[in-house]
Amino acid sequence: MKHFISISDVGDPEPLAEEALMMKSNPEKWRNFAAGKSICLIFFNPSLRTRLSSIRAAEILGMTVTVFNVGKDGWQLELEDGTVMDKGKAEHIKEAAGVISAYFDLIGVRSFADLKNRDKDYRDAMISGFVNYSSVPIVSLESTTLHPLQSLADLATIREFAVKKRPKVVLSWTPHPRALPQAVANSFSQWMMNSDVEFVVTHPKGLELDPGLTGKPTVEYNRKSAFEGADFVYAKNWSTFEPYGEIASHPDWIIDEKIMAHTNDAGFMHCLPVRRNVVVSDSVLDSPSSLIIPQATNRIWSAATVFKNLLS
Amino acid sequence: MKHFISISDVGDPEPLAEEALMMKSNPEKWRNFAAGKSICLIFFNPSLRTRLSSIRAAEILGMTVTVFNVGKDGWQLELEDGTVMDKGKAEHIKEAAGVISAYFDLIGVRSFADLKNRDKDYRDAMISGFVNYSSVPIVSLESTTLHPLQSLADLATIREFAVKKRPKVVLSWTPHPRALPQAVANSFSQWMMNSDVEFVVTHPKGLELDPGLTGKPTVEYNRKSAFEGADFVYAKNWSTFEPYGEIASHPDWIIDEKIMAHTNDAGFMHCLPVRRNVVVSDSVLDSPSSLIIPQATNRIWSAATVFKNLLS
Amino acid sequence: MKHFISISDVGDPEPLAEEALMMKSNPEKWRNFAAGKSICLIFFNPSLRTRLSSIRAAEILGMTVTVFNVGKDGWQLELEDGTVMDKGKAEHIKEAAGVISAYFDLIGVRSFADLKNRDKDYRDAMISGFVNYSSVPIVSLESTTLHPLQSLADLATIREFAVKKRPKVVLSWTPHPRALPQAVANSFSQWMMNSDVEFVVTHPKGLELDPGLTGKPTVEYNRKSAFEGADFVYAKNWSTFEPYGEIASHPDWIIDEKIMAHTNDAGFMHCLPVRRNVVVSDSVLDSPSSLIIPQATNRIWSAATVFKNLLS
Repeated sequence: MKHFISISDVGDPEPLAEEALMMKSNPEKWRNFAAGKSICLIFFNPSLRTRLSSIRAAEILGMTVTVFNVGKDGWQLELEDGTVMDKGKAEHIKEAAGVISAYFDLIGVRSFADLKNRDKDYRDAMISGFVNYSSVPIVSLESTTLHPLQSLADLATIREFAVKKRPKVVLSWTPHPRALPQAVANSFSQWMMNSDVEFVVTHPKGLELDPGLTGKPTVEYNRKSAFEGADFVYAKNWSTFEPYGEIASHPDWIIDEKIMAHTNDAGFMHCLPVRRNVVVSDSVLDSPSSLIIPQATNRIWSAATVFKNLLS
Repeated sequence: MKHFISISDVGDPEPLAEEALMMKSNPEKWRNFAAGKSICLIFFNPSLRTRLSSIRAAEILGMTVTVFNVGKDGWQLELEDGTVMDKGKAEHIKEAAGVISAYFDLIGVRSFADLKNRDKDYRDAMISGFVNYSSVPIVSLESTTLHPLQSLADLATIREFAVKKRPKVVLSWTPHPRALPQAVANSFSQWMMNSDVEFVVTHPKGLELDPGLTGKPTVEYNRKSAFEGADFVYAKNWSTFEPYGEIASHPDWIIDEKIMAHTNDAGFMHCLPVRRNVVVSDSVLDSPSSLIIPQATNRIWSAATVFKNLLS
Repeated sequence: MKHFISISDVGDPEPLAEEALMMKSNPEKWRNFAAGKSICLIFFNPSLRTRLSSIRAAEILGMTVTVFNVGKDGWQLELEDGTVMDKGKAEHIKEAAGVISAYFDLIGVRSFADLKNRDKDYRDAMISGFVNYSSVPIVSLESTTLHPLQSLADLATIREFAVKKRPKVVLSWTPHPRALPQAVANSFSQWMMNSDVEFVVTHPKGLELDPGLTGKPTVEYNRKSAFEGADFVYAKNWSTFEPYGEIASHPDWIIDEKIMAHTNDAGFMHCLPVRRNVVVSDSVLDSPSSLIIPQATNRIWSAATVFKNLLS
């Protein structure tokens, strides 16, 4: 693995998920694995789990960690080639990535879709700029279209809690008051399509995801049918792909006990943060079938596994 | 000790103060005490001493430290139960506390009175939320009504510099241009009332503190009488408790050489930051009787002692 | 060395540059040098290289590092003596420096010229305040008038890439859309005047630097003549010294292949961040003669050398 940006950097995700659970079972073992190594985590947006789990993963491997909030600790970066830089942006990504990769052994970068211009979001000049100009591996801490560290934690959680070898996993769209990126849903679909699960996506019509990213999963518009016999329900809102970035209002797609009753006592998953009583009812989230805390905890082991592989 | 929020978590404060001084006398000894352990320090407001002394305390014990500025690094937390979260707040404290406590061995949280609504301040939904939903110990880095890490450092400083077994300690209200919380004063009183000292509070009429928090110390409205024979003078401003949160203007309550002359060559204490020539004159603050730097230094050992006890 | 503020703290800079390259050649060797020691890096402005290279230098020496963004993490500091602090500033630098130096073994401070009032900038109340009131060594992470950590990295880079013992080094003014401090240029000149190089400064008339800081180098107003036979070209913009802090517009002073053709295949140096196609053309910056990445990398070893000497 040279970088960690999409499923194509990984190939088969199952061994990675296994490795994550193996590391989790013996957390003390890795404390000297990457002693003397360093990682820089670059953020442009607020983040709780990604920030804290990446820090913890690095610490567990014995690395030193530096968090750099570009635009707050530093300045805006120029991403285009050939520009005459006489305006607001003080540094080009060529220099920033060149220097930061000379300072650290690993770089994590988080970019974020602005959901206004699809072509611009899909170009993802920030993460692709770091990939182009860095001399060390780049880990996506979520890109404009994908969130592979989340997906690895998700797969590990499914393997951790599954009672059957090939569980039924349902990705269900849910309501949300804001326009959210498609990254988590795209990436989860991409990973599920490459894993040994029965995978179904359910959402209202008009919320189809980009088939070029999802790997073309089965879509079942009837939510009840989709939930029938599910072992895991993964709840996630996303804004429309076509037209790009609009909020869809379907408040009845909230996940509550009534719809969960159609499942095979499914584990409830969500990447967090979650808006209670909008995305999912308190009754589901506070029930024993909620897996959100172990799922979030697995973010540490997902990151640790990826960092370990990139340093090996 | 399960958490560290108020004097009731501590019982007798004297052995803790002794332990703080004992750790201070041998700083190298603890470097592997908590190796492999981690702490997250959560701030909502600016802070110098609390932030830096907590970081240093954790480092001295060999822990890794992560500072998380909620609202800057992350987002606003919903604190109420049962809310339909369709407004600005993206994450509920149930999830935030659940996840952060799954990531770290210890959590420090600082909340801050807004001094507008006493009931709301006294509920202190942030710190009590963390206590309710965390799976690891919570350390108050100052709550809306108390500041026990400061009080422990204060008691250790008194024991470090006292020449008699039962010194006279005076808490004196001082002027300040802004409305400040009562937390430091409440907490100091609470700790002094449980320690082997002669304790007197002096302030203008109308600045009575909450007797439910202070432990009902002797109040002497005549400042000169209060300062008579004092071994330690602890200066602190607070806003009014009744009506709640108003600024009181008594510029003559500044602490200067004239009023200090009434004491038994008392050590001058203040939790810092201090407004020179408003709270206290330069002449007192720059005199040999000023204990503010050793007192601030003891914040490290206060925090180290508490972290050590909570991890034991 | 007691502090690291200007060339006068250093004396002969050549042995320091040698030591930096020697440390660079064996990075693993120092990991326990300063184990148990701590540094606090205090910033008032955004920074990429200074922030990240100082962090890495401290980590390489085995120190723990705390970054403190005054004004964001803390509050504004009062710098004047004898003030009645009844306005916005909550803490005096006497207390801030006293406390921080009680907490850490080393303090790095970055101040920044505001370019409006020369007397005020030259007093540099922030760094001189820390020097006056700190009980531990102070490292300038750039002051209002000097940037010695940069200059040490610059000299080390010249020694690393020079093919002759006494290379010709040219400091060339370049265009920039904003008013920038003179600190990097002053400091570079100060260090070059004390090193074994042939040093020439070139700039348009009216951009003379402060001779009290530069050490009175040879100034050649004809850029072509200055570049003739140069082994290193150091590009840097600065605003006018007289009148103080104005932007000068000479777009033809951009450094491009045409002017570089006059040199002895000179290495191109710049402290970064650099505005492409304003300060220097893409063609020079992306050419093999560009030394900007190794030069930025040497910031780590410059800082490590200084920290090491101040702790010895």
